Amino acid sequence: MIPRYSRPEMVKIWEPESRFRIWLEIEAHATDALSELGVVPKEAAKAIWEKGSFEVERIDEIEAEVRHDVIAFLTNVAEHVGDPARFMHQGMTSSDVLDTCLSVQLSRAALILLDDIDKLLAVLKRRAFEYKMTPTIGRSHGIHAEPTTFGLKMAEAYAEFKRNRDRLEAARKDIATCAISGAVGTFANIDPRVEAHVAKEMGLNVEPVSTQVIPRDRHAMFFATLGVIASSIERIAIEVRHLQRTEVLEAEEYFAPGQKGSSAMPHKRNPVLTENLTGLSRLVRGYVTPALEDVALWHERDISHSSVERMIGPDATVTLDFALARLTNVMDKLLVYPERMQRNLDRMGGLIHSQRVLLALTQAGISREVAYRLVQRNAMKVWESDGTISLLELLKADPEVTLSDEKLEALFDLGYHLKHVDTIFERVFKD
Amino acid sequence: MIPRYSRPEMVKIWEPESRFRIWLEIEAHATDALSELGVVPKEAAKAIWEKGSFEVERIDEIEAEVRHDVIAFLTNVAEHVGDPARFMHQGMTSSDVLDTCLSVQLSRAALILLDDIDKLLAVLKRRAFEYKMTPTIGRSHGIHAEPTTFGLKMAEAYAEFKRNRDRLEAARKDIATCAISGAVGTFANIDPRVEAHVAKEMGLNVEPVSTQVIPRDRHAMFFATLGVIASSIERIAIEVRHLQRTEVLEAEEYFAPGQKGSSAMPHKRNPVLTENLTGLSRLVRGYVTPALEDVALWHERDISHSSVERMIGPDATVTLDFALARLTNVMDKLLVYPERMQRNLDRMGGLIHSQRVLLALTQAGISREVAYRLVQRNAMKVWESDGTISLLELLKADPEVTLSDEKLEALFDLGYHLKHVDTIFERVFKD
Amino acid sequence: MIPRYSRPEMVKIWEPESRFRIWLEIEAHATDALSELGVVPKEAAKAIWEKGSFEVERIDEIEAEVRHDVIAFLTNVAEHVGDPARFMHQGMTSSDVLDTCLSVQLSRAALILLDDIDKLLAVLKRRAFEYKMTPTIGRSHGIHAEPTTFGLKMAEAYAEFKRNRDRLEAARKDIATCAISGAVGTFANIDPRVEAHVAKEMGLNVEPVSTQVIPRDRHAMFFATLGVIASSIERIAIEVRHLQRTEVLEAEEYFAPGQKGSSAMPHKRNPVLTENLTGLSRLVRGYVTPALEDVALWHERDISHSSVERMIGPDATVTLDFALARLTNVMDKLLVYPERMQRNLDRMGGLIHSQRVLLALTQAGISREVAYRLVQRNAMKVWESDGTISLLELLKADPEVTLSDEKLEALFDLGYHLKHVDTIFERVFKD
Amino acid sequence: MIPRYSRPEMVKIWEPESRFRIWLEIEAHATDALSELGVVPKEAAKAIWEKGSFEVERIDEIEAEVRHDVIAFLTNVAEHVGDPARFMHQGMTSSDVLDTCLSVQLSRAALILLDDIDKLLAVLKRRAFEYKMTPTIGRSHGIHAEPTTFGLKMAEAYAEFKRNRDRLEAARKDIATCAISGAVGTFANIDPRVEAHVAKEMGLNVEPVSTQVIPRDRHAMFFATLGVIASSIERIAIEVRHLQRTEVLEAEEYFAPGQKGSSAMPHKRNPVLTENLTGLSRLVRGYVTPALEDVALWHERDISHSSVERMIGPDATVTLDFALARLTNVMDKLLVYPERMQRNLDRMGGLIHSQRVLLALTQAGISREVAYRLVQRNAMKVWESDGTISLLELLKADPEVTLSDEKLEALFDLGYHLKHVDTIFERVFKD
Repeated sequence: MIPRYSRPEMVKIWEPESRFRIWLEIEAHATDALSELGVVPKEAAKAIWEKGSFEVERIDEIEAEVRHDVIAFLTNVAEHVGDPARFMHQGMTSSDVLDTCLSVQLSRAALILLDDIDKLLAVLKRRAFEYKMTPTIGRSHGIHAEPTTFGLKMAEAYAEFKRNRDRLEAARKDIATCAISGAVGTFANIDPRVEAHVAKEMGLNVEPVSTQVIPRDRHAMFFATLGVIASSIERIAIEVRHLQRTEVLEAEEYFAPGQKGSSAMPHKRNPVLTENLTGLSRLVRGYVTPALEDVALWHERDISHSSVERMIGPDATVTLDFALARLTNVMDKLLVYPERMQRNLDRMGGLIHSQRVLLALTQAGISREVAYRLVQRNAMKVWESDGTISLLELLKADPEVTLSDEKLEALFDLGYHLKHVDTIFERVFKD
Repeated sequence: MIPRYSRPEMVKIWEPESRFRIWLEIEAHATDALSELGVVPKEAAKAIWEKGSFEVERIDEIEAEVRHDVIAFLTNVAEHVGDPARFMHQGMTSSDVLDTCLSVQLSRAALILLDDIDKLLAVLKRRAFEYKMTPTIGRSHGIHAEPTTFGLKMAEAYAEFKRNRDRLEAARKDIATCAISGAVGTFANIDPRVEAHVAKEMGLNVEPVSTQVIPRDRHAMFFATLGVIASSIERIAIEVRHLQRTEVLEAEEYFAPGQKGSSAMPHKRNPVLTENLTGLSRLVRGYVTPALEDVALWHERDISHSSVERMIGPDATVTLDFALARLTNVMDKLLVYPERMQRNLDRMGGLIHSQRVLLALTQAGISREVAYRLVQRNAMKVWESDGTISLLELLKADPEVTLSDEKLEALFDLGYHLKHVDTIFERVFKD
Repeated sequence: MIPRYSRPEMVKIWEPESRFRIWLEIEAHATDALSELGVVPKEAAKAIWEKGSFEVERIDEIEAEVRHDVIAFLTNVAEHVGDPARFMHQGMTSSDVLDTCLSVQLSRAALILLDDIDKLLAVLKRRAFEYKMTPTIGRSHGIHAEPTTFGLKMAEAYAEFKRNRDRLEAARKDIATCAISGAVGTFANIDPRVEAHVAKEMGLNVEPVSTQVIPRDRHAMFFATLGVIASSIERIAIEVRHLQRTEVLEAEEYFAPGQKGSSAMPHKRNPVLTENLTGLSRLVRGYVTPALEDVALWHERDISHSSVERMIGPDATVTLDFALARLTNVMDKLLVYPERMQRNLDRMGGLIHSQRVLLALTQAGISREVAYRLVQRNAMKVWESDGTISLLELLKADPEVTLSDEKLEALFDLGYHLKHVDTIFERVFKD
Repeated sequence: MIPRYSRPEMVKIWEPESRFRIWLEIEAHATDALSELGVVPKEAAKAIWEKGSFEVERIDEIEAEVRHDVIAFLTNVAEHVGDPARFMHQGMTSSDVLDTCLSVQLSRAALILLDDIDKLLAVLKRRAFEYKMTPTIGRSHGIHAEPTTFGLKMAEAYAEFKRNRDRLEAARKDIATCAISGAVGTFANIDPRVEAHVAKEMGLNVEPVSTQVIPRDRHAMFFATLGVIASSIERIAIEVRHLQRTEVLEAEEYFAPGQKGSSAMPHKRNPVLTENLTGLSRLVRGYVTPALEDVALWHERDISHSSVERMIGPDATVTLDFALARLTNVMDKLLVYPERMQRNLDRMGGLIHSQRVLLALTQAGISREVAYRLVQRNAMKVWESDGTISLLELLKADPEVTLSDEKLEALFDLGYHLKHVDTIFERVFKD
């Protein structure tokens, strides 16, 4: 997490101020529940809500001495609350506060990410319909294959991020649990109803069984899901980078007036945003393995996960938030060049229609094997001419190709490839 | 995937025979649909079902020449079917067959894995109830904390694998899609109704929008989920390894008569199965990153994912299947030593009750800070005596500890820690 | 490791036959040393060399009963050697045999990989000199930058694999150690001179201090190095894939007569080998993390590394061997199209000379800022014309551009960019 | 990189101030060389050295407009230097500055890390000799095996970090290269002698052949090496965590007066530093894969590596520096309990001598198979008694054990296991 790749709203979630604020809420809600149960005086709970406060610097100061962040926090809050503070944290263990807080933070982070995805989906949908019927060459292996439309490319991205939205929603639910269960999860010193109350107030589910901590398979699943989303970002980013290549140039990142592409070469307009997204994706993916390694804590917990989460909690969510917003911006402003798409479609001398000819030949009674050889031998000539020879003309001239000229010409129709675009759009954008 | 860590049912899914069998079914169903649509003769579809067959060796032979596996397969099938074979694969592209087949394979693999998890859950549930009230020391940081029960440890494992079951079920649905959409996903040469028919017959959903291939975010999510499950296996494995340590020895892997723990040291009984599970978990986790890197294919597809999936498809599912079965076996036969658990509980001179004393002191009106210092100064003496001095006796003798001897004695009660076990079990095993 | 991506020589290293053969050599050499030291009779050592033998199936059979591979092996060898067999393995522990054997296997694998790299280097060098002065456009961000030569691209690859060769040589030395130090590495039951003798005979160094096993940081470093090499393979593979793109087509994988690029589209010639190499690189990289996770074994050893190594030992070395050989083959036969390179160089209307104009302007006394704006404003016009307008003509016509027409023309000289190619080649190919 | 896990010296390397300082030095040295070659006036070089300066905030301000960091920097420096500034950066490209700067930063970071390792080695050596002959049980699989010494454990750690030092030294050399080769590495606009001069002045080697950038296999190797070192840290950390377990307690992290182990349980003393090191190791390992993915840049460069390096450059080096220093501190102050080691050695009723009895029996003429069974059957009784029965007494009483009581007693001698400690220490600490 560095300022260059951060947005304030997500950063805020991870600031000490926010963390301690959540801690205070958890402690206050817990004391409420304890007072309801008659374990602590009602006044104690009231005092915490009314006078409970903290100062980040003071907590740091105390922590430097006691070397324990939750104790430092409680000590500082007690300085504000006074005597009733001793009823705070009754029967709880530090992890009850820390882990429930992390659930709140990750859950809030997920909500921002979900919102990011929604914005991206809206842009993708708009661009999809904008270019729904704009023909462009489909490429497999980087080689011209058959025509598709630019709108379909957008629709694919839309569908992919729709899936990612569902996955993130599931991961958010997975992570949004509350544990207030004491030192080893037995509720020895605290009633389970306290947990239920805090969970409800903090918008979380109750963790059915915890040790000292919330089990880390939940967090692993969360970060793994972010890794999948990052990989989808990379896919779109690489598509844009390909389309912007000098020789292709079917689309281009928006280039701001005053922007400089290169300190040395004034002519350059580079897809630097999507290249950046490629790198950011690698970063978010890189956080998956440490999160997976955190699952196997020893016995009722060891604290090895903590340093990992202090880093990747902010790093993964802040980076992914930034990347989603950047991708949304790129796709929103993407310069799209339909004429260039058409020119590229035309440049291979009609090779992109080879399959259709193949099918027509087999339907005319020629075996698939023979038909394939017939088409391939003409296609290779076009290929080697770099598209300057026309496949249609070669086929017409080939005595073994038994189709009439009219039939052959009809096979070279672009519209043929677009007839099911509506069907696909209906599937993708049905809701 | 090596025989040592493989089970036949899962291996079978990945054998050439199985793959080609699925291919043939896909082609035959597709031809059915094509004949329904009047694109190919009904007899062609019938001929494929009746005479369609293949030989793995013959396919390999043809592939060595044409260097294309699907063409080799089609050629071989045509040798059986004869002339009607030319109506097979009409308008389809290789990936239609390959990707739909992979969906079938991964979906079937997931069903086996779900069954594996069900068996594991059954064993964990049985052991949980068997030791529901068996006290054992809970450990945080590897250090004695407070009592819990061995049944609760099992319940935690149960809940964790319940979650993993849900995740795998979701991943299975994610992966179980069918694409028969042609060279770049436009259905140019094939009607979408063919796809719908094949999907239904093969037990898959229709892929709403594909390129030449089914999008790889689905596969990434699948393998990432396996990585999470593997990490949970590692957690249980490490728990067993810890419990079997010479100095702890609260549980032990079953040791077969005739088994040798060491070629050199005849006295050894080692937790080799759970150590093995630890290694297998690393392997399955290692397959996550390549799967994530597969997402960003170029344009409408490149084939870089193929070699990855040829390896990790079998490797990840076969290894995880083996690991789940091994873990189930370990937990089923695990030797559990309640007396030893009790002995370990007793060895720290009552230190494990320190928190309860702390709470009782604060409730008796002493500030948390002072109470902590009071308990800690006595606890450290017990600690340094290695549990030979009794915390209870020290507290009784401490003039600043104002609680009566009766009250203090009551605080050292093990039952106190087990009072909510029922509640937790109800939460975990409610369905 | 699957046949499709395997070569026999490397596979052989990992076959049971090879492993047991190495075990037998280790045991025989150790018995030699023991007999020299008078610990066992000379006849015993002689008997092992003369009668020592094994059958893989028989070992498997015994292992099924005793569940310990080294004991199974020793039992089988004893069936051949008879009574003197009891002097075999004296004071040794299984890991002495297993780990030393793994060192031999990885060291031999490294030698094959070094040989693979040497072959690749030879091809790269040849192609480098073949196209040393063949101009081609250099691209940053996928966008035309300035001219370079195709030979320089080859020289870069050569230099990169030269570095990889050095790294692999270092990794090989790191892994090539022998430990015959007994159950916990203390030589309690075996003289260190036995280790020294076996090390010498097996071509290994002595491990200065071992536990029960050779420390796994050595293996981690080995597999990490393979991961770096795989990433370099990916770099070259992606370069080829880019060059073969339809719109670029400056180079192409060799396309065999009779080969089919697509089952559906007879016109296709796809860079499938380099796409395959991209995937294989992901696989080899994926084995790095499990190897790193193997380092932290518990105390004097646990066996969690074993399953990892049984898989990634063969998988990583066999896959990398195959990939290096495939890359060598691709580069050896790569079809290179200098005319097309020239055509691509020419297509941007001279934009690639923009930097040189910028420099000339600043040297003529214009500030860098102003010069940059002058060149950029003309360059953007060329850019937007898709290279149909000439930058040279625009600059000539720009009244603020104070350079004479002759001077401007001289700035658009391709040879200017190639003047230091010799220097670079001397640096790269100096030895 | 977060303050909690950072040390100022390493952090400083990565601060904007340091980065721009290095940029300025590179530019100034380059201008020196250019002036020597007569390309720019001598006064220009002089002016840069004398008046060259920058302000971080001003650069940020300019970058917000031009969106290019190097251009922003040059503009700001020009504000100080005035007119001669236009001779700065002549013929160079941004990457010449950026990449050479990164080499300087990583090289300096490596020097700090090497120093960290030296300090760790000094501590490990001291502790090794301090406990050279202190017997402790060696454990394989977490189970008592045979005696070793605590000094040997330290010697193993020493040898492992000695290897890591060598690896890091190699990685530092690998990364310490300078490229001033222009837009695509051809030196079109800049003389190679400029590069040679800057390299020499900045303490770097000349990159033999670069594209626009220094090839990223160098950086990949660097970060992979950090990942190996982190894994070694984890190994030692886990050893300490194991030794501190309540039931083992052979060593313990230093526990400061005033420190609190748990907010809830006043009796706790937890190995939190080594648990923290375990987590930090996961983080450093996690940065390896993104670095490997950075290698395959497109053509002469794309900028996807940049965001990765902006994060993991600081993150990996700062975290590893912190971790090495923390490990050094832990090992320096580690509380070691030889009496407890002896008590643990004694607790298994002499089982740890089982191998020696086995060997004595075979040397007395009994077959290995029979001897193994004889020892195992007695050993299992001791095992099941939890060490309360003595193996020696059982063996004396076993009629089939033909060794005399005196011989048997001699086999249970601890000194027997320590006789080669000197030899091992000589190997490890020879230099």
